[in-house]
Amino acid sequence: MEREECMTTYELREMSGVQRLKETFNQTEKQLAGHGKRNVSILKEAFEGVSAGMMSDQYGTGAVIEDFQQKMAAFLGKEAAEFFPSGTMAQQAALRIWSDEKGVPRVAYHPLSHLEIHESDALKELHRIDSVLLTDPDKVITLEDIRRLEAPVSCILLELPQREIGGQLPPYEELEAISAYCREHGIRLHMDGARLLEVLPVYGKSASEVSALFDSVYLSVYKGIGGIAGAVLAGDAGFIDQAKVWKHRHGGNLISLYPYIMAADHHFEKRKDRFGDYYTEAKALAARFSGLPLVTTLPDVPVSNMFHVHISLPKEQAARALAEVQEQTGIGIAASLKDAGADRSYFEMALGDAYAELTEAELDDLFSRLGRALEAVRA
Amino acid sequence: MEREECMTTYELREMSGVQRLKETFNQTEKQLAGHGKRNVSILKEAFEGVSAGMMSDQYGTGAVIEDFQQKMAAFLGKEAAEFFPSGTMAQQAALRIWSDEKGVPRVAYHPLSHLEIHESDALKELHRIDSVLLTDPDKVITLEDIRRLEAPVSCILLELPQREIGGQLPPYEELEAISAYCREHGIRLHMDGARLLEVLPVYGKSASEVSALFDSVYLSVYKGIGGIAGAVLAGDAGFIDQAKVWKHRHGGNLISLYPYIMAADHHFEKRKDRFGDYYTEAKALAARFSGLPLVTTLPDVPVSNMFHVHISLPKEQAARALAEVQEQTGIGIAASLKDAGADRSYFEMALGDAYAELTEAELDDLFSRLGRALEAVRA
Repeated sequence: MEREECMTTYELREMSGVQRLKETFNQTEKQLAGHGKRNVSILKEAFEGVSAGMMSDQYGTGAVIEDFQQKMAAFLGKEAAEFFPSGTMAQQAALRIWSDEKGVPRVAYHPLSHLEIHESDALKELHRIDSVLLTDPDKVITLEDIRRLEAPVSCILLELPQREIGGQLPPYEELEAISAYCREHGIRLHMDGARLLEVLPVYGKSASEVSALFDSVYLSVYKGIGGIAGAVLAGDAGFIDQAKVWKHRHGGNLISLYPYIMAADHHFEKRKDRFGDYYTEAKALAARFSGLPLVTTLPDVPVSNMFHVHISLPKEQAARALAEVQEQTGIGIAASLKDAGADRSYFEMALGDAYAELTEAELDDLFSRLGRALEAVRA
Repeated sequence: MEREECMTTYELREMSGVQRLKETFNQTEKQLAGHGKRNVSILKEAFEGVSAGMMSDQYGTGAVIEDFQQKMAAFLGKEAAEFFPSGTMAQQAALRIWSDEKGVPRVAYHPLSHLEIHESDALKELHRIDSVLLTDPDKVITLEDIRRLEAPVSCILLELPQREIGGQLPPYEELEAISAYCREHGIRLHMDGARLLEVLPVYGKSASEVSALFDSVYLSVYKGIGGIAGAVLAGDAGFIDQAKVWKHRHGGNLISLYPYIMAADHHFEKRKDRFGDYYTEAKALAARFSGLPLVTTLPDVPVSNMFHVHISLPKEQAARALAEVQEQTGIGIAASLKDAGADRSYFEMALGDAYAELTEAELDDLFSRLGRALEAVRA
């Protein structure tokens, strides 16, 4: 099934900038962001030392799933945790449980929440739950936004960090105030903590300290952790009992989830103490980008391993500059760009293991080339 | 994470028959049914020759998923196919699409359908689709049952073979008549073909010939095929376009499904031509069981690789006899039993690769011991 396609330099020149950006990225051996390419090595590494005789989990039972769920419950400081095939499934389960509990099929979240923009309206189509959008798309949610809610909601979902705006975060004191307000007013607080580990360094808190502010928590196992796929949902025991039923109804109680669980466990152990480094490196890398002509970052100074790089050029022109530097250096910057209004484009950076494999000299060279390429496009 | 528990003979004697049945089964090295134990070897074997650099699928795109889906569409004689994490998810998607198409949220199926007894009412709770139960629990669905339907339904689901009654099947002519009737009356026909490959030998038909009678087909990749988990849904291109959206909404459009897809593909290639043997062996094995005191099989003569073994003894007594023979021979017969009314119990046999590893002498010995053990319990 393997497909390897290597473009010649001639073929690359014939392409649009956007196509070249993708092709040149795919040909790089090193990258600024991420943990390396998403290939079968992630599975192979996780299963290298595992005995072929080790038994599969079976429809949610068995040591392989139960042990990992216990470990994650302890890590998140909750009574129980459940492994899900995806965060999409885990979060719908959580919001349905809280909506049914209160008898109010309405929840509130950020206008750029994953549920609002990336799930084909599943919350409405499958669960008949309405959403109230808090605040403006380019802002993080504040207590004031929540105070201003007019209709009752069963649950508020907070995404930490807010991915679609460069991984911005509320101050920790604001989180505490939101949590206290929700408890006082009988509103459940759910964390979209897909990237929870990524925000612990800036908060200077443990996962269980942050989770204690929330009634339920979702954590992805394939973003910062770098597993294959899957998610963990945590909360009190009664909540997780109900989550198991919704997982089953969604078709997520697979006979075997061990390929994802064992990869999650392996890569969690390998990376759980690396997030401080990713954060430090993200700040250094953002500073390098900010020093370039036409470039700013969002936020100015990252508050996690993530930030967005905004370029004051249309997508096609920005892509051409980036593709050229990728081709020259063999270092991947971005595979694609998004529009950010007229004549502006941006891409996301989420730092992982790959950054530490680059030398200062390689970075100096890359950024000096990128500066010249952007100047040349502008000229 | 590995847990190995070996019971001593003394510990085994202290247990109930039902517990001993499970423990002695788990300790066997050989089994009558199945493809061997569900352990990590299924994954390791599939990935042995795969390059670590092979790229993952990505949210439903990429060669690994697209190639397998095309192969399955061709095998099933349909325009398109979609890989799902589970049959539970795939079949809800199918029934929802047909219900929306007709604007009738009502489907009809067997009273022991997987959707009715094993999915926590997902069809109602997630999709608000009602079900009409055709025929009696111990019978297969006939055209007459469908003619008698009073309220309109959007879709009829037929399970081939009907698992919960020992894998019984309608005659092929009955299937053809049902298909013609449904087309004439604007009722969609969906196949729960979890075990479709298992029924091809008795029908003497190809997968695409049987599938041609249906509008949509679901096939499991971890039952007869013996993969890790997952399912294929096939139909026309417009149907599969909609199925992709429902898969996404259910939380089944994982960033990476390759662990399941590559295992499915590997084991499909290995076993797709073996189902005639499993069928022949099932008939031979059922004849051996029928020759024992207190034992009958359902059906008398299997019509697939599957049948049920009914014992005219309460569960605890039957379990004791079976456990004793498992302990003596090291060959697994059953891990558990189900009640079948007062003083009767049964278990399922679904033949796979394991049976061919047993010699005639081992089988003769096992069945003569089992006959004596059942006589002793009865006495």
